[in-house]
Amino acid sequence: MTRLAVLGATGAVGETLLKVLAEREFPLDELRLLASERSAGQTRHFRGEDVEVQLATEDAFDGIDIAIFSAGAARSRTFAPHAVAAGAVVIDNSSAFRMDPEVPLVVPEVNPQAAFTHKGVIANPNCSTMQLVPVLKPLHDAAGLEHVTVSTYQSVSGTGQKAIDGLRREAARSLRGETATAEVYAHPIAFNVLPFAGALQGDDGYTDEELKLVNESRKILDLPNLRVSATCVRVPVVNCHSEAVWVTTRERLGAARVRELLEAAPGVTVIDDPVGNAYPTALEIDGLDGVYVGRIRDDLGDDHGVALWVVADNLRKGAATNTVQIAELLTGVTAKR
Amino acid sequence: MTRLAVLGATGAVGETLLKVLAEREFPLDELRLLASERSAGQTRHFRGEDVEVQLATEDAFDGIDIAIFSAGAARSRTFAPHAVAAGAVVIDNSSAFRMDPEVPLVVPEVNPQAAFTHKGVIANPNCSTMQLVPVLKPLHDAAGLEHVTVSTYQSVSGTGQKAIDGLRREAARSLRGETATAEVYAHPIAFNVLPFAGALQGDDGYTDEELKLVNESRKILDLPNLRVSATCVRVPVVNCHSEAVWVTTRERLGAARVRELLEAAPGVTVIDDPVGNAYPTALEIDGLDGVYVGRIRDDLGDDHGVALWVVADNLRKGAATNTVQIAELLTGVTAKR
Repeated sequence: MTRLAVLGATGAVGETLLKVLAEREFPLDELRLLASERSAGQTRHFRGEDVEVQLATEDAFDGIDIAIFSAGAARSRTFAPHAVAAGAVVIDNSSAFRMDPEVPLVVPEVNPQAAFTHKGVIANPNCSTMQLVPVLKPLHDAAGLEHVTVSTYQSVSGTGQKAIDGLRREAARSLRGETATAEVYAHPIAFNVLPFAGALQGDDGYTDEELKLVNESRKILDLPNLRVSATCVRVPVVNCHSEAVWVTTRERLGAARVRELLEAAPGVTVIDDPVGNAYPTALEIDGLDGVYVGRIRDDLGDDHGVALWVVADNLRKGAATNTVQIAELLTGVTAKR
Repeated sequence: MTRLAVLGATGAVGETLLKVLAEREFPLDELRLLASERSAGQTRHFRGEDVEVQLATEDAFDGIDIAIFSAGAARSRTFAPHAVAAGAVVIDNSSAFRMDPEVPLVVPEVNPQAAFTHKGVIANPNCSTMQLVPVLKPLHDAAGLEHVTVSTYQSVSGTGQKAIDGLRREAARSLRGETATAEVYAHPIAFNVLPFAGALQGDDGYTDEELKLVNESRKILDLPNLRVSATCVRVPVVNCHSEAVWVTTRERLGAARVRELLEAAPGVTVIDDPVGNAYPTALEIDGLDGVYVGRIRDDLGDDHGVALWVVADNLRKGAATNTVQIAELLTGVTAKR
């Protein structure tokens, strides 16, 4: 039995986390919900009980075994040392420690062994990387990854509840024939597509969201020289990220073999019958755990390549579910679901 | 002065065509609007006059110099022989003749000379190919194209007015909290992304929309072995297609040189200042002619590659405007706009 703290309990990922903990019947001795002053004092319903949200302070982690952080990188940097000093293992969903060589970056279907090398902190990857690596891993094991190209179709939920509300208000105004105005991003997102997600990083015109796909994939797969081409795009979808992916391998696999490998891959579900209009879409995958793959085709532009379409719920597998899976790994718990 | 017929005058592309002809002050002796029984008898306003839409019949092309067809492949196959027999040159916006080796497939910025090899019919490329080739051409001329990878973010307007209305109705229902229902495609498109555009073609799981990108690009650029990787995706956008593109060249160009080449390319406008949130988006480009490019970056996954974002109005440059440009080529007219 585990004493678990959640920092950022009232955010979009925090809310999803409570659902996932309940669904998977994660065995808990104590659940301590922590948030900033704005949300402290609220209550959250969990397994038939009302749990009060407490103010996150430096000594809020006393007696805690595992602390799941999802309150942004700044708060992770502030509170992680205190949680670790109190004896907790921190599973951090922010970008604060992901590229720290001392911190393992873990996707349980891909590199579970890395979780056990932690020195107090384990990092949870970014959503768009998270859903990609369980697909890449079996292809690498079978034939050696050479090059991965990915363009994303990212929902607004990762930006938070305010972005979901903003998208809806923008869409309502557009349907009333009013001029489009941007509520959330630099440009309107309703009935539009923005080739920009996150913030610029470095001088090469890349966003942090794109560089996470490059760097986090390399770290999780332990392939420091993997070639990754990435363009991250925001679309007017409430929840679930989709990705158009091309994978080139050293040995030729072909679409049929890739389909077999992915059907056998942990955490991956193949939905691929275009004749019957079956392929994963954001609306269908919303609320599901796991990674969903369709449109598996030989790459017409590369003899050693395949083309894929990958969808996952970015609040679940892309964030909350993966943190719970890491907690299950650490505690030896098998999920009930 | 030209006697021009428009077959499919009342469709979404036909309506745009009348706007483009007026804006560019195309010199006309006669404008004959043709449509099926459903629309014959209606009138359309053109340059201050009401023009009656006539029934398309086999002898509707007498005395016509140029006939622009935008009424689907079946009607193109039916009427093209009659229009040609009547002495007209057909500029066909359907897929009927595009891959016919006897029929030139023309984008005036790319292969204008091909227009003059026609034997009565000139084909207009598919929208997603159309906006790509003016970008590829200067890069090929400078450094030799090796491989093009493209994933599309295609609006619904290419499916017709019924898809625009359907998207709006689906979005309104979703905003009222009702269950998503599909009005236009196999799955709901509002607040969703569909990794499927067009119809399956062949046994490899590809759609006709994807194969058009491969085959039409090769034909227009006269590069029969060009390697093209394509995934076509429908997004909940009313009008304008966006594309995430990676281009690999034999000689290394680099992002700075690619930006220079594209700034000088005919029909191409670069909007690329991510620090100032400047990149082309569908909503901004709606109603504009030409092809717009942003997010020009060195490809982190390929030393000889660059990444790009390409947007165009699929009813204008992707369809109507290109047919008018071809008509201008044939008649030696210079557009007033």
